[in-house]
Amino acid sequence: MSGSPLANGKIHLHSSVKRKLAEEKGYVFDKRLRYNVRQNESNCRFRDIVVRKEEGFTHVLLSSQTTDSNALTPEIMKEVCRALGNAAADDSKLLLLSSVGTVFCSGLEPSYLIGRLSTDRRKESSRIAEAVRDFVLAFIHFKKPIVVAINGPALGLGASILPLCDVVWASERAWFQTPCAALHLTPSGCSSYTFPQILGVALANEMLFCGRKLTAQEACSRGLVSQVFWPTTFNQEVMLRVKEMASCNAVVLEESKCLVRSILIPVLEEVNEKECQMLKQLWCSTKGLEALFSYMHSKTTEK
Amino acid sequence: MSGSPLANGKIHLHSSVKRKLAEEKGYVFDKRLRYNVRQNESNCRFRDIVVRKEEGFTHVLLSSQTTDSNALTPEIMKEVCRALGNAAADDSKLLLLSSVGTVFCSGLEPSYLIGRLSTDRRKESSRIAEAVRDFVLAFIHFKKPIVVAINGPALGLGASILPLCDVVWASERAWFQTPCAALHLTPSGCSSYTFPQILGVALANEMLFCGRKLTAQEACSRGLVSQVFWPTTFNQEVMLRVKEMASCNAVVLEESKCLVRSILIPVLEEVNEKECQMLKQLWCSTKGLEALFSYMHSKTTEK
Amino acid sequence: MSGSPLANGKIHLHSSVKRKLAEEKGYVFDKRLRYNVRQNESNCRFRDIVVRKEEGFTHVLLSSQTTDSNALTPEIMKEVCRALGNAAADDSKLLLLSSVGTVFCSGLEPSYLIGRLSTDRRKESSRIAEAVRDFVLAFIHFKKPIVVAINGPALGLGASILPLCDVVWASERAWFQTPCAALHLTPSGCSSYTFPQILGVALANEMLFCGRKLTAQEACSRGLVSQVFWPTTFNQEVMLRVKEMASCNAVVLEESKCLVRSILIPVLEEVNEKECQMLKQLWCSTKGLEALFSYMHSKTTEK
Repeated sequence: MSGSPLANGKIHLHSSVKRKLAEEKGYVFDKRLRYNVRQNESNCRFRDIVVRKEEGFTHVLLSSQTTDSNALTPEIMKEVCRALGNAAADDSKLLLLSSVGTVFCSGLEPSYLIGRLSTDRRKESSRIAEAVRDFVLAFIHFKKPIVVAINGPALGLGASILPLCDVVWASERAWFQTPCAALHLTPSGCSSYTFPQILGVALANEMLFCGRKLTAQEACSRGLVSQVFWPTTFNQEVMLRVKEMASCNAVVLEESKCLVRSILIPVLEEVNEKECQMLKQLWCSTKGLEALFSYMHSKTTEK
Repeated sequence: MSGSPLANGKIHLHSSVKRKLAEEKGYVFDKRLRYNVRQNESNCRFRDIVVRKEEGFTHVLLSSQTTDSNALTPEIMKEVCRALGNAAADDSKLLLLSSVGTVFCSGLEPSYLIGRLSTDRRKESSRIAEAVRDFVLAFIHFKKPIVVAINGPALGLGASILPLCDVVWASERAWFQTPCAALHLTPSGCSSYTFPQILGVALANEMLFCGRKLTAQEACSRGLVSQVFWPTTFNQEVMLRVKEMASCNAVVLEESKCLVRSILIPVLEEVNEKECQMLKQLWCSTKGLEALFSYMHSKTTEK
Repeated sequence: MSGSPLANGKIHLHSSVKRKLAEEKGYVFDKRLRYNVRQNESNCRFRDIVVRKEEGFTHVLLSSQTTDSNALTPEIMKEVCRALGNAAADDSKLLLLSSVGTVFCSGLEPSYLIGRLSTDRRKESSRIAEAVRDFVLAFIHFKKPIVVAINGPALGLGASILPLCDVVWASERAWFQTPCAALHLTPSGCSSYTFPQILGVALANEMLFCGRKLTAQEACSRGLVSQVFWPTTFNQEVMLRVKEMASCNAVVLEESKCLVRSILIPVLEEVNEKECQMLKQLWCSTKGLEALFSYMHSKTTEK
């Protein structure tokens, strides 16, 4: 998180002091710590995520080595699925999902998509769409509560899975965008269903069709996020609340989630299936690939 | 309402003057008036609620003699069901629900639960769960519009039934909390369905899992409440609007409610059934009772 | 828009200058331009709406010659249906709906209703209810995205169809009201379903039962509208965004809308059918007609 450009310059004042305090507390979401974490958690080895078993809960951190900005590839999504599978079976009462770095998750990696789809459009469009489907299904079917802590931008699939999680906390630095149409993509992560439910049709469509960006505060006032915290104390605030939540009875947490979610699961499964079918179809088309190429080009020329 | 501790001390100034004015208007939601009311309304006798037949509408006030803070017991819930049954059959066009005192409703009475469940867990858990189910069903099936006026805190079941009502007005002093998980309880009053619908999944779950408190303003900006009024003029504002609403045509009011609600009734019935099944199961377990005991203990030591 | 009474007088300053600028840009939503438009668009002739075929999209403007304040009659609704039918078949990627004048749409024309229903209640109530049903169905079934730009008040049916559109932008001058109950009407335009979904039950019912007025900002913060713009630049802001949206791929836009909407279509069809049945029944009754008469009378004496 350190060294990221901030809207409010003041946060940088005394940041070294604050950092030290945070480090003494022994819990900084920092790339440098990943290696320590790994050494302590020899039981589950991952490349692009970090999994920490905490008292009462499992902490999964996106920390991609193979992509920038925690972008997703089928391989990374499979690691998350595996971590969710483990957490479902162990004695943790809930799952905390967050990220290492300044970006929560930038969605599907465009260069990966282009690379693979250029090689074998038919085969790769199926394979990637299936990876997205299984990734989204893993969230739909996870029975323990999922808390997400969003430290920075959440884009595309990284934003659309949020309504599949149970409690969503964001740092003031977070923002949300699903620029599907501009990227020649259709909605994913069940956002075609969950976004209109939560944000109202008008705002959901403005996000999906026009790539409207939501600030953390806007996302909170419209229901995508339940609380926004100050960046410098974000991690502490989240850990405090997660620990309290993890002190509740496991059966009560799981049964409450079941009451809230069970009625929606068949709908979400159907929506996910349809969304992924549509993505596969678009990736399979020449136009889809061209749109991705021109997006990549515009990103390169921007820099 | 008088003599209640207030966040804003100023409201106490001249309160005696204001009270007099209010009394002259002949309508104070005050414990002292209950007895007068009773004398006028010899047709329906209740112990813990007050029922006033007004021009065009029926006014039901929670006014518990047997519990503190308008807490609910199966007996009180049965009185409310009986009052709703009467109002459904008479010539009133709508129902106004409010409370006497400074608390709207504090939900199920924990000491009652402990007392009864300690005696005969199996029998009493069934009996109480059934009382909750019938209480919630009475709201689901009530065909005339229900307006709720929330003068103070609404907790647990007292908060979760609000989305089953049609228009929800709150005093600035009101706040809302459903600390289910902390009390080793699962959601009730169909809140596992209605809260995510209204507040979005993230905030609904934060309320249900983490006991997040909503102020009247927050509840209004997120859709649980439709308007917030200043405490000192709350009752007048509510009566003004209810009277206007009661001047509308009875058929139009009932048919409009039918159009809005009928599509949801089967869903709500199913959700209510599931929620009460789960509550019964928890109350029947030793752990459930222990959690209630420890909650009661923490409340006692707080004082 | 010129000459309309404004809350904020300042907007009138230099309005002639601004108008000139706008006219030079060649795009003013003004009654005077209608005739030019007509000459250019000889292919589709309408009396109460204007249809402009733009680059990538179709622009439909309510511009009623036969009613005040863009009120709706069966004939005007049929023109809109016809325009939607044309736009569905042509090569436009989306539809922009807006209005000429200072009022977006004032809903069904009461004097028309009274005139016709007084003549032949049974026949006319059927005919008008069917016109409403088909008008609403045309929105439900339209496959391309619909953007609505609301420049002023949207009342009754003019407000209730908004959730059937996809992106809803409003001028600061817009406001929203569905005073059904006061007019002895039940909800229409699927608002009995869409309003509670978007605004929460409490606010939806306050609008439907109590005629609660929402300002543009309130409508935005509660999800009916996705963004509010300053009146003087409203049209430019809308055109800018619509043109950008129209640069997206047509298949992606249509398929995204399909993903968002398809799941709701059967529900909306059923709700629309029920609402129109109820309206027909009310119009067929003597009481319904009396209520409309007394409403007209109160409007006349107000002036």
